[in-house]
Amino acid sequence: MTENTTSSFEGLSCPLPLQHNEKIVMGHGSGGKMTQDLIKNVFYPFLDSVPLREGNDFARAPLPPQAKMQGRLSISTDCHSVFPIQFPGGDIGKLAVCGTVNDMSMSGAIPLYLTAGFILEEGLPIATLQKIVQSMAEAAEEAGVTIIAGDTKVVERGKADGLYITTTGIGWIPDARTIGGQYARPGDVVLISGYMGDHGMAVLTARGDLGFEADIQSDVAPLNHMIANLLSVAPDTRVLRDPTRGGLATTLNEIAYQSMVGIQLTQVNIPIRPVVQTACEMLGFDPLYVANEGKLIAIVPADQAQPALEAMKASPYGSQAAIIGEVIEQPQKRVLLRTPMGTSRILDTLAGEMLPRIC
Amino acid sequence: MTENTTSSFEGLSCPLPLQHNEKIVMGHGSGGKMTQDLIKNVFYPFLDSVPLREGNDFARAPLPPQAKMQGRLSISTDCHSVFPIQFPGGDIGKLAVCGTVNDMSMSGAIPLYLTAGFILEEGLPIATLQKIVQSMAEAAEEAGVTIIAGDTKVVERGKADGLYITTTGIGWIPDARTIGGQYARPGDVVLISGYMGDHGMAVLTARGDLGFEADIQSDVAPLNHMIANLLSVAPDTRVLRDPTRGGLATTLNEIAYQSMVGIQLTQVNIPIRPVVQTACEMLGFDPLYVANEGKLIAIVPADQAQPALEAMKASPYGSQAAIIGEVIEQPQKRVLLRTPMGTSRILDTLAGEMLPRIC
Repeated sequence: MTENTTSSFEGLSCPLPLQHNEKIVMGHGSGGKMTQDLIKNVFYPFLDSVPLREGNDFARAPLPPQAKMQGRLSISTDCHSVFPIQFPGGDIGKLAVCGTVNDMSMSGAIPLYLTAGFILEEGLPIATLQKIVQSMAEAAEEAGVTIIAGDTKVVERGKADGLYITTTGIGWIPDARTIGGQYARPGDVVLISGYMGDHGMAVLTARGDLGFEADIQSDVAPLNHMIANLLSVAPDTRVLRDPTRGGLATTLNEIAYQSMVGIQLTQVNIPIRPVVQTACEMLGFDPLYVANEGKLIAIVPADQAQPALEAMKASPYGSQAAIIGEVIEQPQKRVLLRTPMGTSRILDTLAGEMLPRIC
Repeated sequence: MTENTTSSFEGLSCPLPLQHNEKIVMGHGSGGKMTQDLIKNVFYPFLDSVPLREGNDFARAPLPPQAKMQGRLSISTDCHSVFPIQFPGGDIGKLAVCGTVNDMSMSGAIPLYLTAGFILEEGLPIATLQKIVQSMAEAAEEAGVTIIAGDTKVVERGKADGLYITTTGIGWIPDARTIGGQYARPGDVVLISGYMGDHGMAVLTARGDLGFEADIQSDVAPLNHMIANLLSVAPDTRVLRDPTRGGLATTLNEIAYQSMVGIQLTQVNIPIRPVVQTACEMLGFDPLYVANEGKLIAIVPADQAQPALEAMKASPYGSQAAIIGEVIEQPQKRVLLRTPMGTSRILDTLAGEMLPRIC
């Protein structure tokens, strides 16, 4: 797993160049430092653009002036390679639709359209594919989006893992809203919409090689309706983001870095399901680094925190929502965790891989 | 390759249901009848929408009335799984950008944005990935589009073939243009922009297992500038389509079916490079079924055929453009080929696979 890796992952601010003879390793897909390093060294030098540099899970995009469009487009794309493709609480199809609906919703957009590209492995049962397409249709209907374009390619047996799905979302941002990872300010309040770590642990237990059984369901869900309600009562929301790959800790580190602020969390306020906590302890994982697929981080001005919390709690996917911390001025680009013992420790970005293929 | 296939591929008009125990086979990725059958039986029942039903390589999509957008969006998506990932004349990166730029341009849209999702196989050399990203950047620059969003996922060694790229394009259709496969009318003229079959044969020869060598370059190229010039002189263009998977024959069959017309071609007028013709003959392929990635079919009213031809010829990618046939009333949903001997034969849709993994 670590062959040919460099030791250059000291921080996001100054990645060292990748070695020319380096190869892709699983850690490049973690969503953590190695992923960021890959993106900064391989993609940015050639594909530089303002939306890419902003580092959000969506791109805000205008149309030409002649189109006379009010507002902007919100565009997002996601590859899905979860193993196994069906797991408690969902499957790769539901994951693909919800993941992309959520990403474009994080810009404050109304999600409108999805495209779906399928890499199918020779030998995949048609009945499995049908179930997955049905899951996609149901999730799209719940979210109120239309799947308007698709493509399929077939690769030889052994050249995929059942199927991979890449979804792209197109939404419309109705006004001058500027929600994004770069807008957190000291004094803002950090909320999450529920239990952390459910999705990653559900997928892991579905692999069946843990040596114990645990009844954990993925939280995969479309969050756009919750977000619409939240924005109606917390219109100055600074940041919305879903803590997927890399979990809460990695996602908050990204935000701290983008906004050049610190984030102070209170550990006892972070909701974690006991069964997830137990499973994580048995396996040596920290649930704050485990992926979620139906949870929302919101960073809002202090005076809108209470209405934002109530809007989350009113959603079927937000009953365990909580205020978990605040944005602070120093130390910049750091996330601090106040432990139950009253001490404070740095919650760093995930370095390499922890759980591969969970989304 | 044929295990568990049904014998239900008699025609596009009435596919029989797939068997419940059927599995994906390589032929489902051919772009021919089996692909159509898969789409109609597995995707349409769940994902029905007007743009999907129209059967074009793009979807025309409005924004909500509050956006006050003039015109419509053109949205297209494509998975790319070509093997090998680098071939004479291009690589998977150039292919991905050009393929999607071309698909959205076929609606008469101005292509604006691309997203790119990467499934990376563990062990892929970083240097290879860098070259491919650079190819994408160069093709995007030539086409004048911005790659504004991306995603990467890493899968274990053996679970992909180097990398797969899924691109989605978003363009803007400035006016009430209604270009699409459903608009061909009897009396219209059919043009193509150059030699048929270059891409598929270039990829095949790059595999190195032919037993002979042939210097064939892929034609992969962005066609949006050629299309803009063509539309300025042939504003009533009915159909634009690129004959990719399944080649000219399959693509024209799709159009004949969508428009409920016949299409009559004159074989001697179809430009085929001698080296491609020879390679095809040695291997038993028909170049009219071989994929192109930088060629355009245009169907235009008879009085705009000459200006359309001149616009194609003025492009660096259209010097061998030719008028190859006409749209006829009967037989509906059929493509006829007038041979050099003066006889006429039906040019049917490709049934299963001919060359897999060429795009």
